[in-house]
Amino acid sequence: MNKEELHRLLHPMKLIGLGGNPALNEKIAKILGEPLLETAVHHFSDGEIQVNISETVRGCDVFVIQTIQDPVNQSFMELEIVLDALHRASAHTINVVVPYLAYSRSDTKTRSREPITAKLIANLLQLTGIDRLLTIDLHASQIQGFYDIPVDHLHAQPLLAQYFLDNGFAGREGDDVVIVSPDHAGAKLARNFGQYFDAPIAIVDQRGTRYDDEVHDMIGDVKGKKCIIVDDLVDTGSRIASSTKSVMAAGATKVYVAVTHALLSQNAVDRLNGLPIEQIVVTDTIQHEQYPDRMVRISVDQLLARGIDYIYNDRSIHEIFDEQNRLK
Amino acid sequence: MNKEELHRLLHPMKLIGLGGNPALNEKIAKILGEPLLETAVHHFSDGEIQVNISETVRGCDVFVIQTIQDPVNQSFMELEIVLDALHRASAHTINVVVPYLAYSRSDTKTRSREPITAKLIANLLQLTGIDRLLTIDLHASQIQGFYDIPVDHLHAQPLLAQYFLDNGFAGREGDDVVIVSPDHAGAKLARNFGQYFDAPIAIVDQRGTRYDDEVHDMIGDVKGKKCIIVDDLVDTGSRIASSTKSVMAAGATKVYVAVTHALLSQNAVDRLNGLPIEQIVVTDTIQHEQYPDRMVRISVDQLLARGIDYIYNDRSIHEIFDEQNRLK
Amino acid sequence: MNKEELHRLLHPMKLIGLGGNPALNEKIAKILGEPLLETAVHHFSDGEIQVNISETVRGCDVFVIQTIQDPVNQSFMELEIVLDALHRASAHTINVVVPYLAYSRSDTKTRSREPITAKLIANLLQLTGIDRLLTIDLHASQIQGFYDIPVDHLHAQPLLAQYFLDNGFAGREGDDVVIVSPDHAGAKLARNFGQYFDAPIAIVDQRGTRYDDEVHDMIGDVKGKKCIIVDDLVDTGSRIASSTKSVMAAGATKVYVAVTHALLSQNAVDRLNGLPIEQIVVTDTIQHEQYPDRMVRISVDQLLARGIDYIYNDRSIHEIFDEQNRLK
Amino acid sequence: MNKEELHRLLHPMKLIGLGGNPALNEKIAKILGEPLLETAVHHFSDGEIQVNISETVRGCDVFVIQTIQDPVNQSFMELEIVLDALHRASAHTINVVVPYLAYSRSDTKTRSREPITAKLIANLLQLTGIDRLLTIDLHASQIQGFYDIPVDHLHAQPLLAQYFLDNGFAGREGDDVVIVSPDHAGAKLARNFGQYFDAPIAIVDQRGTRYDDEVHDMIGDVKGKKCIIVDDLVDTGSRIASSTKSVMAAGATKVYVAVTHALLSQNAVDRLNGLPIEQIVVTDTIQHEQYPDRMVRISVDQLLARGIDYIYNDRSIHEIFDEQNRLK
Amino acid sequence: MNKEELHRLLHPMKLIGLGGNPALNEKIAKILGEPLLETAVHHFSDGEIQVNISETVRGCDVFVIQTIQDPVNQSFMELEIVLDALHRASAHTINVVVPYLAYSRSDTKTRSREPITAKLIANLLQLTGIDRLLTIDLHASQIQGFYDIPVDHLHAQPLLAQYFLDNGFAGREGDDVVIVSPDHAGAKLARNFGQYFDAPIAIVDQRGTRYDDEVHDMIGDVKGKKCIIVDDLVDTGSRIASSTKSVMAAGATKVYVAVTHALLSQNAVDRLNGLPIEQIVVTDTIQHEQYPDRMVRISVDQLLARGIDYIYNDRSIHEIFDEQNRLK
Amino acid sequence: MNKEELHRLLHPMKLIGLGGNPALNEKIAKILGEPLLETAVHHFSDGEIQVNISETVRGCDVFVIQTIQDPVNQSFMELEIVLDALHRASAHTINVVVPYLAYSRSDTKTRSREPITAKLIANLLQLTGIDRLLTIDLHASQIQGFYDIPVDHLHAQPLLAQYFLDNGFAGREGDDVVIVSPDHAGAKLARNFGQYFDAPIAIVDQRGTRYDDEVHDMIGDVKGKKCIIVDDLVDTGSRIASSTKSVMAAGATKVYVAVTHALLSQNAVDRLNGLPIEQIVVTDTIQHEQYPDRMVRISVDQLLARGIDYIYNDRSIHEIFDEQNRLK
Repeated sequence: MNKEELHRLLHPMKLIGLGGNPALNEKIAKILGEPLLETAVHHFSDGEIQVNISETVRGCDVFVIQTIQDPVNQSFMELEIVLDALHRASAHTINVVVPYLAYSRSDTKTRSREPITAKLIANLLQLTGIDRLLTIDLHASQIQGFYDIPVDHLHAQPLLAQYFLDNGFAGREGDDVVIVSPDHAGAKLARNFGQYFDAPIAIVDQRGTRYDDEVHDMIGDVKGKKCIIVDDLVDTGSRIASSTKSVMAAGATKVYVAVTHALLSQNAVDRLNGLPIEQIVVTDTIQHEQYPDRMVRISVDQLLARGIDYIYNDRSIHEIFDEQNRLK
Repeated sequence: MNKEELHRLLHPMKLIGLGGNPALNEKIAKILGEPLLETAVHHFSDGEIQVNISETVRGCDVFVIQTIQDPVNQSFMELEIVLDALHRASAHTINVVVPYLAYSRSDTKTRSREPITAKLIANLLQLTGIDRLLTIDLHASQIQGFYDIPVDHLHAQPLLAQYFLDNGFAGREGDDVVIVSPDHAGAKLARNFGQYFDAPIAIVDQRGTRYDDEVHDMIGDVKGKKCIIVDDLVDTGSRIASSTKSVMAAGATKVYVAVTHALLSQNAVDRLNGLPIEQIVVTDTIQHEQYPDRMVRISVDQLLARGIDYIYNDRSIHEIFDEQNRLK
Repeated sequence: MNKEELHRLLHPMKLIGLGGNPALNEKIAKILGEPLLETAVHHFSDGEIQVNISETVRGCDVFVIQTIQDPVNQSFMELEIVLDALHRASAHTINVVVPYLAYSRSDTKTRSREPITAKLIANLLQLTGIDRLLTIDLHASQIQGFYDIPVDHLHAQPLLAQYFLDNGFAGREGDDVVIVSPDHAGAKLARNFGQYFDAPIAIVDQRGTRYDDEVHDMIGDVKGKKCIIVDDLVDTGSRIASSTKSVMAAGATKVYVAVTHALLSQNAVDRLNGLPIEQIVVTDTIQHEQYPDRMVRISVDQLLARGIDYIYNDRSIHEIFDEQNRLK
Repeated sequence: MNKEELHRLLHPMKLIGLGGNPALNEKIAKILGEPLLETAVHHFSDGEIQVNISETVRGCDVFVIQTIQDPVNQSFMELEIVLDALHRASAHTINVVVPYLAYSRSDTKTRSREPITAKLIANLLQLTGIDRLLTIDLHASQIQGFYDIPVDHLHAQPLLAQYFLDNGFAGREGDDVVIVSPDHAGAKLARNFGQYFDAPIAIVDQRGTRYDDEVHDMIGDVKGKKCIIVDDLVDTGSRIASSTKSVMAAGATKVYVAVTHALLSQNAVDRLNGLPIEQIVVTDTIQHEQYPDRMVRISVDQLLARGIDYIYNDRSIHEIFDEQNRLK
Repeated sequence: MNKEELHRLLHPMKLIGLGGNPALNEKIAKILGEPLLETAVHHFSDGEIQVNISETVRGCDVFVIQTIQDPVNQSFMELEIVLDALHRASAHTINVVVPYLAYSRSDTKTRSREPITAKLIANLLQLTGIDRLLTIDLHASQIQGFYDIPVDHLHAQPLLAQYFLDNGFAGREGDDVVIVSPDHAGAKLARNFGQYFDAPIAIVDQRGTRYDDEVHDMIGDVKGKKCIIVDDLVDTGSRIASSTKSVMAAGATKVYVAVTHALLSQNAVDRLNGLPIEQIVVTDTIQHEQYPDRMVRISVDQLLARGIDYIYNDRSIHEIFDEQNRLK
Repeated sequence: MNKEELHRLLHPMKLIGLGGNPALNEKIAKILGEPLLETAVHHFSDGEIQVNISETVRGCDVFVIQTIQDPVNQSFMELEIVLDALHRASAHTINVVVPYLAYSRSDTKTRSREPITAKLIANLLQLTGIDRLLTIDLHASQIQGFYDIPVDHLHAQPLLAQYFLDNGFAGREGDDVVIVSPDHAGAKLARNFGQYFDAPIAIVDQRGTRYDDEVHDMIGDVKGKKCIIVDDLVDTGSRIASSTKSVMAAGATKVYVAVTHALLSQNAVDRLNGLPIEQIVVTDTIQHEQYPDRMVRISVDQLLARGIDYIYNDRSIHEIFDEQNRLK
């Protein structure tokens, strides 16, 4: 027997898929060749959640996949309750896979007497005795440090870059592309994204309010260029809206958007449909019933399946990073 | 200066009222003569909650009132996030006042691989560094033991009993009253309630399913008696429904209901309206837009205000119990 | 190699049997085919306990069997000290098997300024870094929730029921049997026990003091019936005494008793001998030098050995429950 | 108002005296001018302990006095249960006063697979959320480091020295006194004790077994000298016995014993009575029904009362040490 | 008595000043009108540190001021050891004031198998039971979330801005000033700093290596402008060097530098002296023996003294922020 | 496959050697036949440390070897940072091997307001989630109890004794050898060392100051004897100096020194060179650039390699002790 066979015998892998993104859960399970454990999650009429796991997890390495999307608090409590059940049911290890981790924007106190909810979430998750968190494109990489357990932080932005490279954004030579950060805080992310195309960056000089129709100054030159606005998430779409208008006003020829997490809350779909954007490239970390036109959803299924497989088999996640970096 | 003045100077009392039961919050605040602190709780369109507390709590003894009613998970997370903010804002003590604490029925594993959510809730609450919990009529008194912080557990059932005593249910002589427990687990509660009336008890011999129209055998005699069905909470009303039918079938003359927490989920209002019940006496731990006919809501405002006052001023909660026991 | 062989090679099972019930320890060990580890427990003349474990436990899965019977505090501290030694000696996992867990009745505050000793015990046990608790018929199932580690809670009452079924208490047809709860709190347990015989239940309407010779009213009918008084434990026997007298006074023809834990403290043996009880069926979770006449002790050895085996080999305890439920 | 009055108003002092040494508890209370709180400690016939505290401790600074003497485990659990009750009853601070702390000799692993019970005791005490430990003459001063809470460690040996100084052992000039350590580990203690008399020290060269009648070699000269054998505790008395015989065999003229904690277990009284010792000077940290002849008991009441008073009023314990050092 | 007098009576303030920046410690103490407690910190020849605090801190609110500057690890351990001593000496609260908190740049994993040392530091500090951290201009504001205790995070950048405003950088009208971020990650900080002058920002487009003499492209326009390069810290000065060269190459007329923490390690002094910078404005969070020419050190003494005073007297730190914001 | 092969497959051993004693690290690695993992430890010019581990440790049993020698605080923080990295990198177990553990002498409060730094170190080490500590000859064996994780405490003194036995100090018959403790606290260690030679012991009666040239009285007889001064460590050498002078003054013929940890701080080398000592036998737990003449360094490589091997393969460390005891 080799190591992998031994491990599988001693601590079988069990996959649990929760919540609002069943399509992604199933894709991951299919790639891994493991069935999703039947897990009854019952939402009572008084709002409480009850769960029951259909088969034994004693001694197993369990991976629970749950994207913390709207309704956020319910998704999160559902996850917590399942974790409590797994812990009491003597799972060998409990690994939490969260494609999109809500509340990550609340990562610092901006005013007195504010909470740091991203840290609260970290504390609550760790309380249930989990062994590891696997997630994608955190709003700030410092959030890894909110955890004392190992956090495997995967990057979906290379997938987005790959899409553009595959679609004619000729890497490393095309001097007509500019990567745009929609605000100052995103400059580093834009710079990083720019490396795939050897492209310069520009920043929308957001000040004060964030109305849809506000046109901001640009820092850096976008005149006559194709712009890819890069962000970690799109929520109501208002920041994308004002950014699009700003780059257009500054003379950009075409606008593209590359974003990992598509929250699409409020009237985001309509708002995005109304903008002169060529394409909005996102991932499928969050599932919705309706998407904007011209939205392309790249699946993170392979990425997460590989992360789970590597963790389960004690292979270094670093191999994934190395491979991704070869794109640059 | 006396002790109370000193304390008020060193550690002022601050009241925060959250969530779905603002009427009760305001009544408590009025009795205590303290304003409710302005607390901005913003629910974003993506489902996340953000809070901001309007004035300093540094060095203050804060009492946060939040009933954990439907939407349960959102109410609970709202509370957690406020607690995180208070803790980071250097409150002197944080006292949590929860008129109704959801998930208390999930207090044990009834099958393999179930969670014990009431304990999870206890752990999550304690994580945020709170000093004390003040609550009313827990589903099981053992839940106090889920906490390592002091829990002050007030009883609203004497208020319900008082109502019946005030309305002609002549205590200590009327031999035509029987206190009915809707299931076996509630026998002890019924016995305790019976002490106010020196009344015998009977038990609905619930077995298996709990359909509305099911008539169960009675343990104990209710023939020709006025029955008060006693329970800690009414949720969908189906248990009250089958209990009512069972006692009527067994010859009861009139049916009353005395319950602390009126969850009234699903179609409970219609269901209760359709039953031959004289009166349903509940408290106002939970607020709704609509109530069944013949429902009387007794306020727990005085009880909670007194609890808060006693805690703040280091007086023994025992005095409240002693007074309540004099009714018996 | 299959999984069980692999596990046995990597983490051998070690059994340690402590304290006052060596007969049970040895029976369990014999069924499991594993020797009890020689463990020197020395009680010094000044009251202190010293322990030394005879052979290495490094990397082993250790199961420590100790019933917390009288002298309770000494038994408990003996267990704690052994656990400290095992932890420092690098055991792989430490599993505590407690056939009878004392202090479980102290599971709630009944008056102000009382401890919740069952929670204190839980905290003290968990402090030593144990991995799991295996126990039988806790006084209240909520006590599972006092623990954050997995608790495997086995039921001995099916064993008691089986005995009656094997001895002429014809299940599912005999309409002359009534299951009696000695107080209100036990109604649910009685109801559950009744399911094995499809029998009705009755409750001794205990109020106030619990003297031996007090005759209480009955809730439910026992006239002309064979009564089985069911409880989780018999301590001084005074509750059984007054219950026996109450059911006899109410016209019962014969009285049996079915109880899991036979504490038999004070003059319980004499008291029980003086009562008109046909048979007292208990388990051997607690060992004494002397037992009442007409007491039948059913061994929990198979049940516990099976629990240990299933835990060790990652099999679901649920299988035991399923099998037991088939009796009903 | 001055600071002490303020403190007394805000956080009244409450004294609780437990267990086997009520005489000492009462002496301390008398000196402090505070009554001992009435605390019902009930030992049930099955061995369990139940406690109830008679009056409110909410907001109070509580000092619990309990010497952990035989029956050690019961004394310790009694203390733990009271601490749990105090914590749940919202005491402001809980200060534990332990004149003699059992299990302190189990402060290291001397063989494989031994526990370090003194650390276990420290962990168990701290688990209940106590604020401070006040104790006397720990077996090893390193035990302070087993605690993460403040430990105020008082020294009773100056009281013993004072007694000898008051009784003709002329300090700083008498060259006929030798301080004797009964074993190697006590050499430092003997050296420290010798400072009060400017006396040399000698050591009984204990090797191997410790039978009463064994005569060991002496390291250092005792010929023609008055010897004071100094130790932290006397348990069965066998070490004192062999030490006495050894110094007599080496030519000592008279033997005295100075020991803080008189455990006097087994047949210690008879054994000590049979030895040619002039006087055995001990403290009253432990109470017995019977004492050896020629035993003088110096009370630690003033020392502990002062410790409690200084802690309560935020005065430095250092003042006590300074005063004691002036003796040297 | 008013609140402040009461507090001062009950819990006197004690200031402890450690380490490498005694001048700042003394200035703060002088403003507060409290002496620095005499604290002996002895560095033994084998490298160990021993501390002794000269007077009692029992019941006091202690503020320990220690900047974690080079030698970083020694400074940090010195602080930790003092904290351990204060905790064991029964201080009422322990407040840690760290003008510069080293290791804050290690706030995320940039490669596999890296530590997150800023979180380690947070965990180590919190382990000693401190109540609060007061610090200035953390490298990333998310580091607040690494702590579960309250962190009061003061901003020194308004002090730097004030200096420029006072020296002719006419706020709100001067269109010849550009605020420059030396890298992408600093864009947000630059934007914030720009608000004091209503000035645009530009970013040095750092890619790859950071040699002194490397000239990078600029994002944003600096031609013919006075540039203020803004950063949170200057370490070896190489980033300032390449930034200076880049803005000069892009046509800036004059270069200024505004930085909070002046680490000045390696040959920073020489390097900075060699650059065509008009003025380098820093604070005195870190003390050196030698500074570059044209360096202006603004003291944070008032800011920290005010922070300490507000914390001690339960006033909201928010007042400081409000006042600072009025500058904008 | 046997157990060892299985374990090696599932959880490969990884060795990391840090810090100031690379020669010892390499010797241990060579004996174990495992390479030292390449670990980049970078000391930045501002004093901060950054580490990067070259290859994956996911699922591995890691042993980190670091002697905490001068510069002590830097060595300790380097270890802590590596431990944080290993923990976040999902190592299966983390075992810390510390040949010399600094700060062990700070194991108790000798005066008010002192820290107990050895406990602080224990707490800091445990915080990073390590599984076990392997160390040699702690200053006080009670320090094991400062840890809640298993501590494997090896003894190097048998190695020192073996050297003397191998070099003509005829065991068990030579009556011309005396083992000398340089102070009272070391008497027990001396007695233990004496067992290898069946030799008597003597004690240097150190009082007050410890100047090099001070001659103290001796307790016990050394006249005409060969003396071996035994201690756990030699720091500045002043205690060895005064001890040497004292035994010479008392008539000793020859002086030898046997010490485990050679700190050799300050001018220890010169001081020791100036003393009439025949031989100073130490171990190589600490590495220096220069050693005194007549110093013999015995390697602990075999001892530590064996400890690591036994821990890794779940063999009892007891076997090592048994073998060492056979020398006596």
